[in-house]
Amino acid sequence: MAAVRTGALDRVPPHPDVRDVTLQQVLEALVDPVRRGIVAQLYTAGQDIKCGAFDMPVSKSTGTHHFRVLREAGLIRQYYVGTSRMNALRRADVEAAFPGLLAALFGAGGGSAGSR
Amino acid sequence: MAAVRTGALDRVPPHPDVRDVTLQQVLEALVDPVRRGIVAQLYTAGQDIKCGAFDMPVSKSTGTHHFRVLREAGLIRQYYVGTSRMNALRRADVEAAFPGLLAALFGAGGGSAGSR
Repeated sequence: MAAVRTGALDRVPPHPDVRDVTLQQVLEALVDPVRRGIVAQLYTAGQDIKCGAFDMPVSKSTGTHHFRVLREAGLIRQYYVGTSRMNALRRADVEAAFPGLLAALFGAGGGSAGSR
Repeated sequence: MAAVRTGALDRVPPHPDVRDVTLQQVLEALVDPVRRGIVAQLYTAGQDIKCGAFDMPVSKSTGTHHFRVLREAGLIRQYYVGTSRMNALRRADVEAAFPGLLAALFGAGGGSAGSR
């Protein structure tokens, strides 16, 4: 029997319910300046961004690690469009679980969009 | 000539201007659950607390280290009353530099007062 062909849905990595994520996990994700930079770019862009299009000072494999940490902390959602892995900020989910946190860290009045 | 007697002012440790503190430094201070617990207790108590009166699962010397990190991140102010070292949350200073951050982390709608 031929191997079952995996469809697009099989390539979507697992995403936690943000209500199951602890503040500890969210802070451990966001204390890293590269990861905070990724979220800041998504927050400011207001649209999804593919992995290769971020301004990031790290290698592709290191970037993949950072995206995974953010995904497991419930901060971003990843999905495929063709061969591009896209990243979406889980703005509403995070706001519901940790009200005000994204605005405090990335908003206009916050820490300079996470850059300082 | 007798040694100059040091007064209370000499025992006050240095405190940064919170506007000189980076978000990176604040997050590095608050990613530690013990330090977040200290700030959560100050946030909730609404009054200054002496070092020995915190509910903390660490030794006195480790506690001293955590208080220093919080002080250097501009989050708490330390001063003496007699032989007790007191700790005050720099609520207004932090709010001015990082609007909404304390409420997001320690407020009623936030991460369960930093405990999860």
